[in-house]
Amino acid sequence: MPSAVPACADVPQPAHPLRHRPVDARARYRFVRAETLARVQGLTAEDQTLQSMPDASPTKWHLAHTTWFFETFLLSGLAPGYTPFDPHFRYLFNSYYEGVGERWPRAARGLLSRPTVAEVMAYRAHVDRAMEAWLDGGALDAHTAALLELGLQHEQQHQELIITDIKHALMLHPFPPAIFPAPAPAEPAGQITWRAVPAGLYAVGATGKEDFIFDNETPRHKVWLEAFEIADRAVTNADYLEFMADGGYRRAELWLSDGWAVVRAQDWQAPLYWQRGEEGAWQVKTLSGCRPVDPNEPVCHISQYEADAYARWAEARWPGARLPTEAEWEIAAGEPPVERALDDGSFHARVTAGFYGDVWEWTASAYTGYPGYRPPDGAIGEYNGKFMSGQMVLRGGSRATPAGHVRKTYRNFFPPATRWQFSGLRLARTP
Amino acid sequence: MPSAVPACADVPQPAHPLRHRPVDARARYRFVRAETLARVQGLTAEDQTLQSMPDASPTKWHLAHTTWFFETFLLSGLAPGYTPFDPHFRYLFNSYYEGVGERWPRAARGLLSRPTVAEVMAYRAHVDRAMEAWLDGGALDAHTAALLELGLQHEQQHQELIITDIKHALMLHPFPPAIFPAPAPAEPAGQITWRAVPAGLYAVGATGKEDFIFDNETPRHKVWLEAFEIADRAVTNADYLEFMADGGYRRAELWLSDGWAVVRAQDWQAPLYWQRGEEGAWQVKTLSGCRPVDPNEPVCHISQYEADAYARWAEARWPGARLPTEAEWEIAAGEPPVERALDDGSFHARVTAGFYGDVWEWTASAYTGYPGYRPPDGAIGEYNGKFMSGQMVLRGGSRATPAGHVRKTYRNFFPPATRWQFSGLRLARTP
Amino acid sequence: MPSAVPACADVPQPAHPLRHRPVDARARYRFVRAETLARVQGLTAEDQTLQSMPDASPTKWHLAHTTWFFETFLLSGLAPGYTPFDPHFRYLFNSYYEGVGERWPRAARGLLSRPTVAEVMAYRAHVDRAMEAWLDGGALDAHTAALLELGLQHEQQHQELIITDIKHALMLHPFPPAIFPAPAPAEPAGQITWRAVPAGLYAVGATGKEDFIFDNETPRHKVWLEAFEIADRAVTNADYLEFMADGGYRRAELWLSDGWAVVRAQDWQAPLYWQRGEEGAWQVKTLSGCRPVDPNEPVCHISQYEADAYARWAEARWPGARLPTEAEWEIAAGEPPVERALDDGSFHARVTAGFYGDVWEWTASAYTGYPGYRPPDGAIGEYNGKFMSGQMVLRGGSRATPAGHVRKTYRNFFPPATRWQFSGLRLARTP
Amino acid sequence: MPSAVPACADVPQPAHPLRHRPVDARARYRFVRAETLARVQGLTAEDQTLQSMPDASPTKWHLAHTTWFFETFLLSGLAPGYTPFDPHFRYLFNSYYEGVGERWPRAARGLLSRPTVAEVMAYRAHVDRAMEAWLDGGALDAHTAALLELGLQHEQQHQELIITDIKHALMLHPFPPAIFPAPAPAEPAGQITWRAVPAGLYAVGATGKEDFIFDNETPRHKVWLEAFEIADRAVTNADYLEFMADGGYRRAELWLSDGWAVVRAQDWQAPLYWQRGEEGAWQVKTLSGCRPVDPNEPVCHISQYEADAYARWAEARWPGARLPTEAEWEIAAGEPPVERALDDGSFHARVTAGFYGDVWEWTASAYTGYPGYRPPDGAIGEYNGKFMSGQMVLRGGSRATPAGHVRKTYRNFFPPATRWQFSGLRLARTP
Repeated sequence: MPSAVPACADVPQPAHPLRHRPVDARARYRFVRAETLARVQGLTAEDQTLQSMPDASPTKWHLAHTTWFFETFLLSGLAPGYTPFDPHFRYLFNSYYEGVGERWPRAARGLLSRPTVAEVMAYRAHVDRAMEAWLDGGALDAHTAALLELGLQHEQQHQELIITDIKHALMLHPFPPAIFPAPAPAEPAGQITWRAVPAGLYAVGATGKEDFIFDNETPRHKVWLEAFEIADRAVTNADYLEFMADGGYRRAELWLSDGWAVVRAQDWQAPLYWQRGEEGAWQVKTLSGCRPVDPNEPVCHISQYEADAYARWAEARWPGARLPTEAEWEIAAGEPPVERALDDGSFHARVTAGFYGDVWEWTASAYTGYPGYRPPDGAIGEYNGKFMSGQMVLRGGSRATPAGHVRKTYRNFFPPATRWQFSGLRLARTP
Repeated sequence: MPSAVPACADVPQPAHPLRHRPVDARARYRFVRAETLARVQGLTAEDQTLQSMPDASPTKWHLAHTTWFFETFLLSGLAPGYTPFDPHFRYLFNSYYEGVGERWPRAARGLLSRPTVAEVMAYRAHVDRAMEAWLDGGALDAHTAALLELGLQHEQQHQELIITDIKHALMLHPFPPAIFPAPAPAEPAGQITWRAVPAGLYAVGATGKEDFIFDNETPRHKVWLEAFEIADRAVTNADYLEFMADGGYRRAELWLSDGWAVVRAQDWQAPLYWQRGEEGAWQVKTLSGCRPVDPNEPVCHISQYEADAYARWAEARWPGARLPTEAEWEIAAGEPPVERALDDGSFHARVTAGFYGDVWEWTASAYTGYPGYRPPDGAIGEYNGKFMSGQMVLRGGSRATPAGHVRKTYRNFFPPATRWQFSGLRLARTP
Repeated sequence: MPSAVPACADVPQPAHPLRHRPVDARARYRFVRAETLARVQGLTAEDQTLQSMPDASPTKWHLAHTTWFFETFLLSGLAPGYTPFDPHFRYLFNSYYEGVGERWPRAARGLLSRPTVAEVMAYRAHVDRAMEAWLDGGALDAHTAALLELGLQHEQQHQELIITDIKHALMLHPFPPAIFPAPAPAEPAGQITWRAVPAGLYAVGATGKEDFIFDNETPRHKVWLEAFEIADRAVTNADYLEFMADGGYRRAELWLSDGWAVVRAQDWQAPLYWQRGEEGAWQVKTLSGCRPVDPNEPVCHISQYEADAYARWAEARWPGARLPTEAEWEIAAGEPPVERALDDGSFHARVTAGFYGDVWEWTASAYTGYPGYRPPDGAIGEYNGKFMSGQMVLRGGSRATPAGHVRKTYRNFFPPATRWQFSGLRLARTP
Repeated sequence: MPSAVPACADVPQPAHPLRHRPVDARARYRFVRAETLARVQGLTAEDQTLQSMPDASPTKWHLAHTTWFFETFLLSGLAPGYTPFDPHFRYLFNSYYEGVGERWPRAARGLLSRPTVAEVMAYRAHVDRAMEAWLDGGALDAHTAALLELGLQHEQQHQELIITDIKHALMLHPFPPAIFPAPAPAEPAGQITWRAVPAGLYAVGATGKEDFIFDNETPRHKVWLEAFEIADRAVTNADYLEFMADGGYRRAELWLSDGWAVVRAQDWQAPLYWQRGEEGAWQVKTLSGCRPVDPNEPVCHISQYEADAYARWAEARWPGARLPTEAEWEIAAGEPPVERALDDGSFHARVTAGFYGDVWEWTASAYTGYPGYRPPDGAIGEYNGKFMSGQMVLRGGSRATPAGHVRKTYRNFFPPATRWQFSGLRLARTP
């Protein structure tokens, strides 16, 4: 059952007019499309065909689906004389848009050996040529410019999924290849320090001044918060190893009931991709090879159940410790830095400092609509609203999130058992 | 996987001292215990052995488990010289208290042909005698009195589950027996009228003046609400039939993604227990036989997915219509009436008027802890907190809820796909 | 998927006229019907309602189904003025007779709390009265007498299933009741001796002189057998413990591929109902309590996979050892003794000597039709023929088989993974 | 559960010395290896990576596994100084040889994006070079020559599986590619004529004069057969369409019980790969495109359950009709023609005449060892014996079987529900 659907872009609608800052559209289009291809350089055609589970998609499916978005929502309606590359693709590369018609089942994307990677690349080139010709045709009106930006934001979301999905597939190989360069060791993380936030009636959600937002960040609304404190950094592997050493995965009292059931059913004993080395020490499998677990890195690839259990355990050290709500996180976080740490090409989480480090941070908040939220109308309004059930909010962005796609009000969401995303946590506490 | 655990009682703890109004303890004990037995009069020993699904328990298991609660948490520690009825029962009738030790798996309760119903009745008599003798021994201190009341509230919760669980089992029989008297036809429901509630900063949760509360109703806290309106009655079968006639179960755009997946996987076409009669008209199977669907009754035995889809559909009639949040519900509801409609013994939902009618009302709120909530310590503190994941809140109480167990701040909770509880809905709307 | 359907009776047909020796029909009817009731004396109404797996049925279902057979195939057509006890029973207690119409699903028999045990007993009494009155009406013609005998043989088959099915259910209880008297210890089994059978063209199958046969024992046909030897007794627990001690359950090379897959998937380490005692010694759970494994008893409750693996292992001791084919078994066995060992009421396998001991013996033969076999026509001809796929033949009869129901040419059959029947093995070998 | 394992080669052993006719080893090696590559010319790297179900393997896995066989059983032991291409391959490309050590799970072969197709081709070239150098080194002794031939027969078996497995995968694509040329229409099939075979004691199994045999064709043994008749051609699509038109897939009485359960569970309504065209006529999806069903072709891609149901239905036309046993088939078949119909490259069954047409023919015989059969010793003796459970025998060979791999005594075997092989049937009848 496709309960875990990756965050996907939304489209403009009257209720939530996209407030998109004008840019050089063609340059930006080229930039985003190029970043996608940069991420798949190390992958063979065979790699790009793999689907390791229903929630993950083959690389080449991502490459085609993001292209399909431009073809379906821009070129087909707005570019005079545009001819679709292949009429079958409307069916093959629709993700979950009931309004666009039938589509190939998500769980069976791994059966699509055709089109090949080469054909998908030709599809991308075909659409890129048409898009650039169309963009050369003159300035876009505001709505069309916003729709273009939406397609680019959508592609950026899939850039992250390309990394998380191929990581899941390749880590199942008994001898996983190293396709990216290894990162430098993380800097020492230091002790957690706590920042106090006073009680008050705060405003949460998009302000209207953002370059771009998704509909689920609206409407801006008031939330009463009691006084709380929040940690200045994410939880590290060193922190998490203490939890493990203290029986974290064996003590039922630390876990939500559903979480404990998963721990037992799947025999969880550590974060995803960790394994015992020959000497018994923990190692982590990464896209740049298998290495000892680095104590200074943020703990990554944990579920919300594990984040919650860790926080419950941490209460013995820091009374009142817990996961922050998403409102608390947003009020505390401030704006993201203009410059993120240099991307080293490793796609491996290393930075714990600040609120916009390298891991998505699980919150205590279920993913629901903000007060007054209404999903937009039409076929391309199915993206955020219909997933507001059974999922938990993550905030902040990860090492796999492309530059420029990080935002204070951004709401990511996944079911609480999800582990294949770059997900970690930060502690809050009630004084 | 037993993810859906019925609401079960909690126990007193320092952080949330039970504020229990003194009563004649022995009289109240007798009253509650007698009500349990009154509910099972029409059931055979064979009926009481059935377990129709992992989430439902056999009647005789409920009869024994509620008794086990008094034996384990009161008699064994507080009544000098008490001898347990059977040492195996500590294992057999523990529900999910990890702190009390190992227990027989929930999903396998239907394999317990032993103890028999007669033996369970002897167990109840044994514990009742010991309890009454102990209660005769003198006034209880405040903590113990509260613990006793907790056991009684716990038993009342299981009184409701006795009805919902046996209904589920018997309705699976190809020729279900009628074990309760039929209700009179419902009164005409009338048009929905809307009550306006102004925006403001409201207080939600237990005030401290209640006779009894569970820990999940605390702490009382502030919530900012925008102005909203709320319907004066629950949605009726007549209302719901319009939704069905308008393709409600066939229109993907009305549903949450997870809900739509369940609709297709389980081929839902109507509320649980509805079936087509020979002429094609809808009938409903009840504990007093099969009858035509009464248009004036509240729609009952629907999941939160169905409630949500109905509300989305209803927006075309009442712009802004949606499910209320639990805070909105609580602010709008006011106190329950001192006298509920006379119980006619039918255990069939008939009343739509007011906020405390005959069906639990699904809300838009995920079940999480109130700000500052902390689960109590100890073995008997596992009841509410650990279920705060993947469930949605229901409010108001049902026809199966025993008298005196209804309360403004009471939070019931079940996973959104749940249908075997007496669950319906009420609309709210954003003006 | 109900692939494993217990052996059930067949009915007379032109091609295989039943050759049933005349007896006092009424006395025999009473005798067989009484034996059924004798077997359920120790069971509570709750016990009789249990269904522990799709392949096993509740005791009271067996009690009703055997009665339904007489009502459906004899009284309803042949007894003037007979009124069925309850018209619903035609649906509820049909087992798998497509020709009789729809039926309640096999896997859901455990949901039938109604009719109660008392009502089933009343049903039996109603049919018994009608049957005896009808039998008093005069001598039966040959066909009708044979049909009556078929109903009685059918009931005897269910007498065995009553024991095997309730044993499976009660052994799943964490504290299984002892409902039968314990047996005396088995006599020492002694060394295996081998009997040689010369090569030749033999005749296999019913001779036409039997008191009663099922259609699958026909037609009698020629089979060429090479010379072989066969053991004079069944394999004992002592024998089997050697196999276990020698890594029998851990050595893939001893197992059929499908068998090995089951061993790993279900973590088989010993016969069904065996468990480790506190000191590590093997115990066996029985219907008369839990006891140390008796080395002299025949090994029982093993699958054909285990029987086959044991035989492969035994080849190291007895070169050429293997399971016998059913033809070899039949040629070697000779006629069963007129008197079986006194039934001690324990329903526990103790006797290894001879070919008609206490356990069904797995053979190497897949269950298929004999050359020229054709299933009989009509609704009651569905019993044996349609199960000739995916099952293996067992021979000889067990401690749970009623007296008089044992026969040289009798073919029992179950899927090779079956363990809840009283099944063991005997070795053959190729010289 | 990997119950359905494709037929795979066995190795020589003392008990069954391979009687392999001397040939030019190097020329034969080249010929067989080249045929493998010829079959995959139309496949992309992405196609070759697909695994559509646990029972089917990716093309490139077949290419590597057959190569692994020569590396493991010949080069590693017999060619001085041979260096394995990649030490991981011993693990990755072992199929089910417990004796060779651990191996990658069969059901997860589709996760092996690495090695790529190009790397597998390099592996083949590496082993081919070493094999040819070794074969140049001088004449082989008889045992080694036989082992070489075994590897080639093994590769031929996988040549057939390459076709059946990729067909299964590509037919799941919503727009299957046509990778082979279309066949010419089949010749009219004509009426069935029957050939009579008299009763007698026949000899079955390998004579010792074959060029090559597998161990499961031995020992030659005597079987008594009653007189029977056998059809001169396979059942055609026209024949089968009559069965379908007569309600074949809706009439429970025609089916084995297990077969009927599968029909309902999987909603079978026609052979695998058949679908309704726009006008309602039946079409068949093939590796050369989708076409109307040709009435003159042999019915293909049916399970043994369907073959058995067809035969039961056919009895109304031809009294006594049924499936032949494998002994009957072998006695009736005679030797295969020296020249088969010219291979047109379509890999599509077209020929019904004779016993060695284009479809494997299901028999009524369960796959068990011949009397006196013993699996050979050692790691490479696991191939045939351990699958002698739960499978049915097919005879004759198919359009996908390579030339020279067809033999009168050849025993193919698959579970009765199998449909993705080129399987059909021929009728026998009892006079």
